[in-house]
Amino acid sequence: LSSMDEFALIRRLTSDRQAPSLLDSAGVMTGIGDDAAVAKTTPGKELVLTCDTMTEDVHFLPITMRDSDIGYKAMASAISDIAAMGGTARLAMVSVSIPPRWTLDRMEQVYEGLYACANRWNVAVVGGDTTSSTGGLTLSVSVIGEVDSGRALLRSGAKRGDVVVVTGPLGLSAAGLDYLLKQRLRSDEWPAFDGRILPLVTAHCRPDPRLEAGELLLRSGRCHALNDVSDGLASEAWELAEASGVGIDLLEERIRVTDELYSYTAGAGKDALDYILYGGEDYQLIGTVEAAYAPELQVAFREAGLTLDVVGYVTAEDTGVRLIREDGTVQSLDKKGYNHFTKG
Amino acid sequence: LSSMDEFALIRRLTSDRQAPSLLDSAGVMTGIGDDAAVAKTTPGKELVLTCDTMTEDVHFLPITMRDSDIGYKAMASAISDIAAMGGTARLAMVSVSIPPRWTLDRMEQVYEGLYACANRWNVAVVGGDTTSSTGGLTLSVSVIGEVDSGRALLRSGAKRGDVVVVTGPLGLSAAGLDYLLKQRLRSDEWPAFDGRILPLVTAHCRPDPRLEAGELLLRSGRCHALNDVSDGLASEAWELAEASGVGIDLLEERIRVTDELYSYTAGAGKDALDYILYGGEDYQLIGTVEAAYAPELQVAFREAGLTLDVVGYVTAEDTGVRLIREDGTVQSLDKKGYNHFTKG
Repeated sequence: LSSMDEFALIRRLTSDRQAPSLLDSAGVMTGIGDDAAVAKTTPGKELVLTCDTMTEDVHFLPITMRDSDIGYKAMASAISDIAAMGGTARLAMVSVSIPPRWTLDRMEQVYEGLYACANRWNVAVVGGDTTSSTGGLTLSVSVIGEVDSGRALLRSGAKRGDVVVVTGPLGLSAAGLDYLLKQRLRSDEWPAFDGRILPLVTAHCRPDPRLEAGELLLRSGRCHALNDVSDGLASEAWELAEASGVGIDLLEERIRVTDELYSYTAGAGKDALDYILYGGEDYQLIGTVEAAYAPELQVAFREAGLTLDVVGYVTAEDTGVRLIREDGTVQSLDKKGYNHFTKG
Repeated sequence: LSSMDEFALIRRLTSDRQAPSLLDSAGVMTGIGDDAAVAKTTPGKELVLTCDTMTEDVHFLPITMRDSDIGYKAMASAISDIAAMGGTARLAMVSVSIPPRWTLDRMEQVYEGLYACANRWNVAVVGGDTTSSTGGLTLSVSVIGEVDSGRALLRSGAKRGDVVVVTGPLGLSAAGLDYLLKQRLRSDEWPAFDGRILPLVTAHCRPDPRLEAGELLLRSGRCHALNDVSDGLASEAWELAEASGVGIDLLEERIRVTDELYSYTAGAGKDALDYILYGGEDYQLIGTVEAAYAPELQVAFREAGLTLDVVGYVTAEDTGVRLIREDGTVQSLDKKGYNHFTKG
């Protein structure tokens, strides 16, 4: 790979990966190939901007992700930040640092995953930079989206009287990672996973950003604060609580444990709730909405083929983030976030 | 550094670095600290987007750049791509991968340089990501700017009848790098450079993007193609020529050799022209403008305190890029670009 001209490499990795209609609908006037890309904006909208980096040996290992998953997840996690503002993702730029040992074949797999995610979510890849790396593979993805002017959903708007909602089950990604770390097989030797494990591995390797859910929450006008769950439910609830100057009580009985998570954790002698509270990278959204409006919003979500679980409520600031156990005991939750590869 | 919480580190590196008035004028509604940033757009403008990555041991060594230069140059080279479209730079996101051996002190220097450049060019840093690195320090900077709708200066518009212009002297950065590689001193041991060397070292370590020049060229309405000189005059002329389907003749007698470049290369037994044609990272702009309009444009540049040199003219495609020597001989120029650390 190191013998290849940089421009030839970029062409090989990026050419003909996106339909002209996708680029058009994202407003692209000039894409990859000039000094910079040019794109139209939409009147009445503001820009939403984020970037996210994934590094080999820090965020992924040869036994925890297929090459195409690396690209998919790097793009998905950046798009998820746009979803967490209630925005629409439109444009992306990808910067990649490639160690000499990575072959062109493997890099093509990385880009296949990257574009699979971009194409699925109608994001035009309009720029990038390719350099060599003396360490591991590093992928940095910037995503630029749009949101209705003045209406972006920040973390800081949670209010007393709000309930806390999440857009889907949590803890699956961390359980999937746990399984893969124990399996200890390079991804090119992975077996076909059975129906109990596949959802966990998929949640870890190919998470999907909750763009529709974020837009629905914004359009409802009743969502006051929003965040994506990249570091576990406890940590994200703390972020909302601290940014908004409130407390949050989470209700154990309302937190969904999927059959797959239950069966995996029970079999491994682990606590499913621990994965939900302190596992990471589920990329569901957590937000607060006006309590009286929550049932109506749940119906709207169901009609759109989405889910919205009420898992708690906003309290006074001085109680912090707590878990109300099913037996009625009250437990303060740590702020600690998610650390890759350190879970048991 | 590895013991530090990521959020605490980001706060330490990014807090209070930019005036509220700068953030306001860049349209920032929500900056660093939420899932994503939010910024206003300007009616009648399109977005210009680019990203640029600098990696330790590939783009810089401890003997070729001070820590603050690394940040300055990473920001400057990304902004330069916006200048090369005739745009205005407004927003930036910075992704950094930090090896464990880099101390907080050194990283603060990197960010001081990064913000020095951003503040100088009124660019609001609205996002970023910090990860650890198992290799060298890697900095990836995305810059988002604006340009008058439909008027971005691409590489592909050069026409017969155009002259080729550059916005300042070339070859200085490569000579500065050459000097530093021979000096072989870690940057914390650098002496005060004398007046002959300082401009060369400054050109290499603290290049400034030519934003005003790019905007002036766009506003003139007579500039048909534009590029920034990151890989040497020959390589960039080839890019313009190939993208536009034309040839370019460069005139040796019109290519400016500064006293500092002449004296350095003469003393080292080197050819100044070689540094100009095949050295890189000067970040001047090269473009083509309507020949009849060039003198007027040069006056406008002079009045704005800028320079614009006519160094050649557009020819037919089949002659490629050529150098017309002072003695009248004609020499075809290679496409070869600039390679870091391989110059003699």
